[in-house]
Amino acid sequence: MVIVMGSEATPDDIESIVGLVATAGGEAFVSRGVSRTIIGLVGDVERFAALNLRGKSGVADVMRVSVPYKLVSRENHPERSTVRVGGVPIGPDTVTLIAGPCAVETPRQTLEAAEMAKAAGATLLRGGAFKPRTSPYAFQGLGEEGLRILADVREKTGLPIVTEVVDAHDVELVASYADMLQIGTRNTQNFALLQAVGKAGKPVMLKRGMSGTIEEWLMSAEYIAQRGNLDIVLCERGIRTFETATRNTLDVSAVPVAQRLSHLPVIIDPSHSGGRRDLVLPLTRAAVAVGADGVIIDVHPHPEQALCDGPQALVNGDLRELARVMRQFPPLLGRTLTDATHAVPVPA
Amino acid sequence: MVIVMGSEATPDDIESIVGLVATAGGEAFVSRGVSRTIIGLVGDVERFAALNLRGKSGVADVMRVSVPYKLVSRENHPERSTVRVGGVPIGPDTVTLIAGPCAVETPRQTLEAAEMAKAAGATLLRGGAFKPRTSPYAFQGLGEEGLRILADVREKTGLPIVTEVVDAHDVELVASYADMLQIGTRNTQNFALLQAVGKAGKPVMLKRGMSGTIEEWLMSAEYIAQRGNLDIVLCERGIRTFETATRNTLDVSAVPVAQRLSHLPVIIDPSHSGGRRDLVLPLTRAAVAVGADGVIIDVHPHPEQALCDGPQALVNGDLRELARVMRQFPPLLGRTLTDATHAVPVPA
Amino acid sequence: MVIVMGSEATPDDIESIVGLVATAGGEAFVSRGVSRTIIGLVGDVERFAALNLRGKSGVADVMRVSVPYKLVSRENHPERSTVRVGGVPIGPDTVTLIAGPCAVETPRQTLEAAEMAKAAGATLLRGGAFKPRTSPYAFQGLGEEGLRILADVREKTGLPIVTEVVDAHDVELVASYADMLQIGTRNTQNFALLQAVGKAGKPVMLKRGMSGTIEEWLMSAEYIAQRGNLDIVLCERGIRTFETATRNTLDVSAVPVAQRLSHLPVIIDPSHSGGRRDLVLPLTRAAVAVGADGVIIDVHPHPEQALCDGPQALVNGDLRELARVMRQFPPLLGRTLTDATHAVPVPA
Amino acid sequence: MVIVMGSEATPDDIESIVGLVATAGGEAFVSRGVSRTIIGLVGDVERFAALNLRGKSGVADVMRVSVPYKLVSRENHPERSTVRVGGVPIGPDTVTLIAGPCAVETPRQTLEAAEMAKAAGATLLRGGAFKPRTSPYAFQGLGEEGLRILADVREKTGLPIVTEVVDAHDVELVASYADMLQIGTRNTQNFALLQAVGKAGKPVMLKRGMSGTIEEWLMSAEYIAQRGNLDIVLCERGIRTFETATRNTLDVSAVPVAQRLSHLPVIIDPSHSGGRRDLVLPLTRAAVAVGADGVIIDVHPHPEQALCDGPQALVNGDLRELARVMRQFPPLLGRTLTDATHAVPVPA
Repeated sequence: MVIVMGSEATPDDIESIVGLVATAGGEAFVSRGVSRTIIGLVGDVERFAALNLRGKSGVADVMRVSVPYKLVSRENHPERSTVRVGGVPIGPDTVTLIAGPCAVETPRQTLEAAEMAKAAGATLLRGGAFKPRTSPYAFQGLGEEGLRILADVREKTGLPIVTEVVDAHDVELVASYADMLQIGTRNTQNFALLQAVGKAGKPVMLKRGMSGTIEEWLMSAEYIAQRGNLDIVLCERGIRTFETATRNTLDVSAVPVAQRLSHLPVIIDPSHSGGRRDLVLPLTRAAVAVGADGVIIDVHPHPEQALCDGPQALVNGDLRELARVMRQFPPLLGRTLTDATHAVPVPA
Repeated sequence: MVIVMGSEATPDDIESIVGLVATAGGEAFVSRGVSRTIIGLVGDVERFAALNLRGKSGVADVMRVSVPYKLVSRENHPERSTVRVGGVPIGPDTVTLIAGPCAVETPRQTLEAAEMAKAAGATLLRGGAFKPRTSPYAFQGLGEEGLRILADVREKTGLPIVTEVVDAHDVELVASYADMLQIGTRNTQNFALLQAVGKAGKPVMLKRGMSGTIEEWLMSAEYIAQRGNLDIVLCERGIRTFETATRNTLDVSAVPVAQRLSHLPVIIDPSHSGGRRDLVLPLTRAAVAVGADGVIIDVHPHPEQALCDGPQALVNGDLRELARVMRQFPPLLGRTLTDATHAVPVPA
Repeated sequence: MVIVMGSEATPDDIESIVGLVATAGGEAFVSRGVSRTIIGLVGDVERFAALNLRGKSGVADVMRVSVPYKLVSRENHPERSTVRVGGVPIGPDTVTLIAGPCAVETPRQTLEAAEMAKAAGATLLRGGAFKPRTSPYAFQGLGEEGLRILADVREKTGLPIVTEVVDAHDVELVASYADMLQIGTRNTQNFALLQAVGKAGKPVMLKRGMSGTIEEWLMSAEYIAQRGNLDIVLCERGIRTFETATRNTLDVSAVPVAQRLSHLPVIIDPSHSGGRRDLVLPLTRAAVAVGADGVIIDVHPHPEQALCDGPQALVNGDLRELARVMRQFPPLLGRTLTDATHAVPVPA
Repeated sequence: MVIVMGSEATPDDIESIVGLVATAGGEAFVSRGVSRTIIGLVGDVERFAALNLRGKSGVADVMRVSVPYKLVSRENHPERSTVRVGGVPIGPDTVTLIAGPCAVETPRQTLEAAEMAKAAGATLLRGGAFKPRTSPYAFQGLGEEGLRILADVREKTGLPIVTEVVDAHDVELVASYADMLQIGTRNTQNFALLQAVGKAGKPVMLKRGMSGTIEEWLMSAEYIAQRGNLDIVLCERGIRTFETATRNTLDVSAVPVAQRLSHLPVIIDPSHSGGRRDLVLPLTRAAVAVGADGVIIDVHPHPEQALCDGPQALVNGDLRELARVMRQFPPLLGRTLTDATHAVPVPA
């Protein structure tokens, strides 16, 4: 931690900071300049934070020089992690395709979408039973009935299930069906929910807040990790900017940045970033090329009838191209598409 | 609703839209231009929305021409509303000052802060017992103990209490102590929590999401209203932009815009917008001058010891100036500072 | 300047930094921590900047602790400045109203607008002869003919003229007519233009870039100041955010922040911020209340016929209210509306 | 164009709009709804724009349904264009690598950087002689001396030159040396400069404004095209957002969006987007994969001594990897890296 004293700071002000740091068991190194003095702090950052140094007389600025998260940081865990979902890995050696319908609507639509997903190379099935919607008048999902449909389709296709949970109260229920719990962009700072999934015993996919910094995203992951769950996959899904041609702006740079700061896998959601079907394939190629550990994609057998986000779902005609991308791009990065051979059996 | 057909749209595409609109009980007015055709829709927007017209062949764009919220809209409720909190009004005739500590820490700190608030003209006491914090390692609030302290200080000062609730699970508990439930910026789209406070039988203060549009904010209010609770006060608290000199950018324009779109009262939080003590008084003046129905301000007897947001709390020296602002500015807008004479007794 | 070394930095890396700093005539104070080392630099920042320390081996971050502008900084010039435009002051003791048409269209429209402006309390006339327009197909201004109209209206009303210059090539021409040169938001980082107005011998109004930070704005002012011209007035006019209900988001906090960092006067443009007539008066009140040294407002005798930004121009009916605001609000801040008594005669 | 009437609009208001549209030679189709009326306009949009319909009584909103640019639009020019720079193509069939130093510093540094660029597969040389810098105290480029160095290096390496022009006054000079004129992000709305390069008879690379929408970018291209120059290459270089881990946020989606709206080639600048060396290669891979027609990259023989943007320049060790990416990725998109065989001789 570095304290920058204002030009009006007195010697007493500086003395006082040095004393406080000592009481917190730290050491303060004072650099006196012509117009300003800088104090470097060495010791326990948590204890320094409790001193509220920013509020002290003469202090102009306090700058943190280490990251505020620990368990998810790469500093003490240089090896990148692999998270297994129903036996299927998401990690640095492969590229994992997760696909399925935005919302579970009927058994038939879900099964058809799962089969489309599988044909394109997916090894995990996505599908929403609980949908967070901006409007209270929009379709909110089938709830537990949707979870049952998903479980049934897993039975038929062998694809483990990734599904969203929107309320701490529902975590136990959703976890009893799902292989991976998804936290959506509007809930990235719903700390009660983060703590609940941290205790649920299932891997978690944590979307980035649509206006969240990468640091805040990692702090949210830390909330989950702190409850004992390190099976977390980060998912970049576009951030909010002034541009209106796309629903959000996909921040591909977030992938290498987050992978350097954290050991957790990082994937991309090309469907919700742009919100336009014509962008899904170009953004999927960019996602794999930038080094994402996976992609999660909306597919729908009849997008014109979809109850949610139909306009961005890939249709049958696009899936051959998706399959080609997933097969041809990963090898250029020394990876392969995750397939059945990477999965490990899960004990019953 | 207006449908803009793409230049590649065929007569059959247009025909098909007209037919669909008819099946939904609406009428379609077709305007054929040289390069494009426009279809104006008249009828029930909800039913049109369910048609997924955006996904149909030939459709280039779908433009909504009415607002997506109803209960909180001013269209059918031209009179601006007044919300009463423990008898104290927040509405178009007065300017209400809400003040208190960011976090409840001790009985003494809370009482001192409440007395400072009262001396400055406050008629409502703010104070957090449950604190949503970006870091899991930061002080998270005293919980129910904090609520008891608040209730005790209300007893002593007569100030009704505004306090935050962060988890749907805690709504009943918090509502049993509080006079008004506050929804923080990170929970503005926590729909489970919105629905829970909608049923809690207490007025709600709904902060704007730090990256939420005004329309999304009103949609979130609609979630609360839909459960039967129209005692909602909107609170602008700064939005996230590229500027780093302030914690957030206070959007004063949001006050007249939201007051024009909705009948609900709109207040401003000058403390959390800038995150700097030196900005609180200038932003408070701007808030009253732009037409806010109230302001909510952090005060702390000893900000250098505060466990939360100390650097932005007003101290004793600033409070005389705050009192002057609250007394002198409202009359220029034909209002008065809310005081004891505006409160109505609340039946026990 | 503070250098933060990465956890992988070697003793040689640190040694090397210390040596470089010494060659630049500075001193380096090394604070060794458990996981990181911090080096505080004292000396000439310009010379340190030339060392490219950020690129050196072992360096994780370089943090500047002093502002990068000098002439416009308040550090060495604690007194706030007053700028005189044709004798009329813009500064800390008064609030100056600048008003007039967005674009000069005809002699009659300009004269009528000037008379409206004067009646509302304006002591300076704004009006554009050269208009920067996003579309090459939009009205680009009357050019020199517009300047002649403005000069003629100045003759008739006694109001000094503020007008925009968009091309370094035109600075001499515009300066031969204008009393103050305006730099628009799209040209805030047009450094050739800034340097040209720096040499033109006329006061300059520098709008903030619509996506510029306050620091960048002050750096742009420094470009002008560096050419010997310190008669600069900063003008906040809204920044670009994700919100679409307003054209831009007026950042009122920028006024106290810029006034604290710089000695230059700071005014607000409430017309172009919101881009909506119904917001102009509320934002004007907020501008004066937050402490702006002036406001600049669009007025038009017949806004429905305006060739530019008609929808945001105040009309006759609003001007009485504007006059009242300009008369009643400044005294609450210990100021008065700038009027004829504040002007000093300008030698011919 | 579609006019949405407010709920308070009278039959006379509607009548009046219909009449105005007729006087402008257009047709108005009126759709009367229960609470609102919509008027679809068919005819000449330019003439409608001149009516200022938004300011008329009863009008709530005016929505444009066609794009405001023409010459650069893909609507009337469905084939994507190829622009040739000194014979080297930038277009849909190849991927062109442009590389070189951010700033020209010495003959030797420039020649070494050009040789590095060529070895990595570059067929065009970038290098700045005029540098727009936020600070007036930063290195501003060598000016004409830099242009002479570039011309000399072109002679030695055979690489045509891309270089920035920052002042309309310098366009002729820069054009007398350069093969392609670059317009930087701070000048994207410097309309005087756009018009000057439009007449200069050389291809132009137009960077996107750092806070510019895609539509504004295309409007800026229209300014150039309007002066008779359609040899324009669009360059995405990152936009300004709230994220601070990267200098800007690279908006890869802008490539397919702009390619769909315009026939002009679109390239990406991965160096200036992130501002970090470790991001250049991942972002280059993403750029090629998303479908960019080229990339422009900073290389420097000794980045630790660079006078400008050293921290983001690729060094020798990275260039083999860059060469591999440029060779292996384009074929997956049915393209090849632009090489000598694609160049056509330029008549002397």
